Amino acid sequence: MGAPLTTRGNAPKQDRSRATRRRLLQSAVACLAERGWTGSTVAVVAEHAGVTRGAAQHHFPTREDLFTAAVEYVAEERSAVVRDLPRPAGVREAVEAVVGLYTGELFRAALQLWVAASNEPQLAPRVVALEARIGRETHRMAVRLLDADESAPGVRETVQGLLDMARGLGLANLLTDDGARRERVVAQWAAVVEAALRG
Amino acid sequence: MGAPLTTRGNAPKQDRSRATRRRLLQSAVACLAERGWTGSTVAVVAEHAGVTRGAAQHHFPTREDLFTAAVEYVAEERSAVVRDLPRPAGVREAVEAVVGLYTGELFRAALQLWVAASNEPQLAPRVVALEARIGRETHRMAVRLLDADESAPGVRETVQGLLDMARGLGLANLLTDDGARRERVVAQWAAVVEAALRG
Repeated sequence: MGAPLTTRGNAPKQDRSRATRRRLLQSAVACLAERGWTGSTVAVVAEHAGVTRGAAQHHFPTREDLFTAAVEYVAEERSAVVRDLPRPAGVREAVEAVVGLYTGELFRAALQLWVAASNEPQLAPRVVALEARIGRETHRMAVRLLDADESAPGVRETVQGLLDMARGLGLANLLTDDGARRERVVAQWAAVVEAALRG
Repeated sequence: MGAPLTTRGNAPKQDRSRATRRRLLQSAVACLAERGWTGSTVAVVAEHAGVTRGAAQHHFPTREDLFTAAVEYVAEERSAVVRDLPRPAGVREAVEAVVGLYTGELFRAALQLWVAASNEPQLAPRVVALEARIGRETHRMAVRLLDADESAPGVRETVQGLLDMARGLGLANLLTDDGARRERVVAQWAAVVEAALRG
């Protein structure tokens, strides 16, 4: 109990600042997923988060700062959630969990950011670095979910290809609900991946 | 030799009109791949194609007309090329060819159009219809390249999953050259797909 005397006065202010920052990051991902890069300005995100534009710019001086930080923050939050889940019972459940990483709001937001970066030189290097960090973490999550032994030949590439498939399934779900087809593909590929991993 | 008398006067004009139309479609795909949806106006495409804006609007009254027609035209051109290729010697070559469908300018252009459609209500229904047509044709190409027998259980879903993986590999190649990693994934997955298809 009781913060040290010297910080007692600042603690609530810091808490409020952290809460504002978190709201801005979550709003930025929601706006990006729903309205795309062109429709997601700092002003739009500030309004969505219920904070002033000045407060948003205090936390994130540029638009690039805000959106790259937002995708990273939400990806880290998700990693923490996945880390705390019990390991799936079988390969089918593991493949479903891996594919599930690419069908929600975070994937839609990241996709908008990646595609915008392909046409915006000032955004590209930051998104490339972010993609590498998220890619490594997603690979670790998949290895853990699948209980895969990467010291065996080909297993690393099997996991990578599965993640590429999951990314493609996410893209196929962008404009229409692809859930029924996806379920059949996942059922078949879970069997294929199990044979490949367990020999 | 010799067109019928009644069309003789119109034939060169029709040829010119067709050539202009083709140049506009090819330029539209190039601009979309390089500059994205926001950077690709009808004026930008007309300049790239070396025709007047008026001529572009004569062929394609709206921006949506131009870009959906362009992606469809280039996809059809590509289908014709793939149909005339000799069937690949083995599954590895077939998987390489399938993945190759997603790593060029056409995929980049289509990706820009798909993602723009996710935020633009007037574009979405046309892109959904286009995606369905191109998806069916790409599936037919993959079945032919792989010499797959879709009457066997699971084969249809195996081919679909491979196309999803190819789409994901295309996305992974958007911001950086992913060629070295892709080659390793393709080598491993060619073996996995061969085992799944040939049982």
